[in-house]
Amino acid sequence: MNNSFREIASEIEKAKKIVLYPHLNMDGDALGSCVALCHVFRDRGIDAHVYISEDIPDNLKFLDNGYCTYDENVVMDADISMLVDSGELKRIRGREEVFKTGKKSICIDHHETSEPFCDFNHIDPKAAATGELVFKLLKEMDAQGDKEIANALFAAITTDTGNFQYSNTDKLSHEIVATLYDWGLESSKVSIEIYENYRLERLKLEAEAMYGAEIFGGGRAAMTKVTQEMLRETGALMNETESIVDNLRSIRGVEVAVLFKQEEDGLIRTSIRSKEWFDVAELATVFGGGGHKHASGFSSRKTLDEVWEDTKREIEKRLK
Amino acid sequence: MNNSFREIASEIEKAKKIVLYPHLNMDGDALGSCVALCHVFRDRGIDAHVYISEDIPDNLKFLDNGYCTYDENVVMDADISMLVDSGELKRIRGREEVFKTGKKSICIDHHETSEPFCDFNHIDPKAAATGELVFKLLKEMDAQGDKEIANALFAAITTDTGNFQYSNTDKLSHEIVATLYDWGLESSKVSIEIYENYRLERLKLEAEAMYGAEIFGGGRAAMTKVTQEMLRETGALMNETESIVDNLRSIRGVEVAVLFKQEEDGLIRTSIRSKEWFDVAELATVFGGGGHKHASGFSSRKTLDEVWEDTKREIEKRLK
Repeated sequence: MNNSFREIASEIEKAKKIVLYPHLNMDGDALGSCVALCHVFRDRGIDAHVYISEDIPDNLKFLDNGYCTYDENVVMDADISMLVDSGELKRIRGREEVFKTGKKSICIDHHETSEPFCDFNHIDPKAAATGELVFKLLKEMDAQGDKEIANALFAAITTDTGNFQYSNTDKLSHEIVATLYDWGLESSKVSIEIYENYRLERLKLEAEAMYGAEIFGGGRAAMTKVTQEMLRETGALMNETESIVDNLRSIRGVEVAVLFKQEEDGLIRTSIRSKEWFDVAELATVFGGGGHKHASGFSSRKTLDEVWEDTKREIEKRLK
Repeated sequence: MNNSFREIASEIEKAKKIVLYPHLNMDGDALGSCVALCHVFRDRGIDAHVYISEDIPDNLKFLDNGYCTYDENVVMDADISMLVDSGELKRIRGREEVFKTGKKSICIDHHETSEPFCDFNHIDPKAAATGELVFKLLKEMDAQGDKEIANALFAAITTDTGNFQYSNTDKLSHEIVATLYDWGLESSKVSIEIYENYRLERLKLEAEAMYGAEIFGGGRAAMTKVTQEMLRETGALMNETESIVDNLRSIRGVEVAVLFKQEEDGLIRTSIRSKEWFDVAELATVFGGGGHKHASGFSSRKTLDEVWEDTKREIEKRLK
């Protein structure tokens, strides 16, 4: 059962210190949503921080105007620990003990697989982005919108809707962005930061991943990988891999696309995307993962070759 | 002086036969706008056609539900000839004589360089897409929106706004799309047709072109090439190269990006793009070409190596 935005707003209004937790491998939706909230909280005199444990991706650094901290001491013992764009403690691994020092906890998320476990939860899988839920919460709080909040929420929405192209995009997504223009949205500036700000190393890695793609299932499935060796060769970083699975999906006829990422410790992280009808959330659960119908993932301790073959077999079964 | 949409609607309401003219090298805005208008005209019992003289690009074919014709006989002597997304007769070269057989002419366009020359003109350079002007005209006509019209206008707007990222995008763009959802818009379906419909050969060529990129001018310029050999190796076609120069421009710090295309007969076609301040139109004129500040080009009969070095030298001079 979801808590209403009014209930959540009431909790926020009582708090003196709030710490926001974007999920690991933060994306535009996680960080943009956290930044927008942190900005409004500080405007209200709340001691607010976004607590992170990893580098902010270069193309999202423009969002952090002094909101993010790595300093455990700054974020301990908050009145509210707020989990944003994630509904699972394991998605803030390394920070969960600090999260638990919060007196109350709130979760705002749009992932289908999220289970409410916080004191207050608003999980709406129909929302195209957590940024849309944050927008609704800010409205409920009568927050004064400004350029920075508008840019942060636009970053959240445009990245999670695939620039308003994915099927999660709806009337509300566009209505919200229309309002963001009233707040001073600079869509072009945000877009250059996010999308025209790639290191050459990243683009070379994307190129190599495209070369290594395997097409199967009668042209309806595509898979590729990013190994530690590929990162060394190209000089790219693992957080520069997010376009690769979308590039695979953009191939004509491909319904399901998969990217395997080999982490330093050998863990294989798998990202799965589908175009129209293939339910990749269901596929991911077979391997202990989860997500949405069109975007899901899972992790595995098997070897890359094993995960590749296992996933391929499951997809082939479903394409028959 | 622009005619009002009311004036234009009145002319349309009197007509029995209307022929629509998208510009050469038709894009999503030109064809989407024509299709939306043609659909509404036919709904009203008007004998309406979209007159074209070239192949519809593969990724836009879904828009044509029997509206387009190559048949001169079908489109002669219309009550209204309607020029869409262009304000110059030379942009409908090969069809201008048929255009002139129309009893009256209407132009709906958003290009800054367009001069009104038709009997009725509505040219609005502030509009992000001609599709937005068509939307306003349809509202003025009290047209009944439906899924096909919504999809066509979304195709028009999403392509001309760079998926709502370009600086031409504004509040109205999003408000219009919000309304299109009421009409049955299938944004995801349209986007898959337009953007997730690339041949693997194309993506492999893009990958190879990225590998061959040279960065110079302190990281502010990027160049690459597509040779006949690269086409043979990847199986891609020269008309599948349009993303390459944008990919180069998306590199962090790159202000000016250049793609050299070696045609079968050895002609070198050069596409130049800039991100913010570099005037590539001025650069292209040095080599006998032209264009806009952020997008230009030229052709040369010199060797690829020569054109490469000449262009590099000119860019380096300007970056100093």
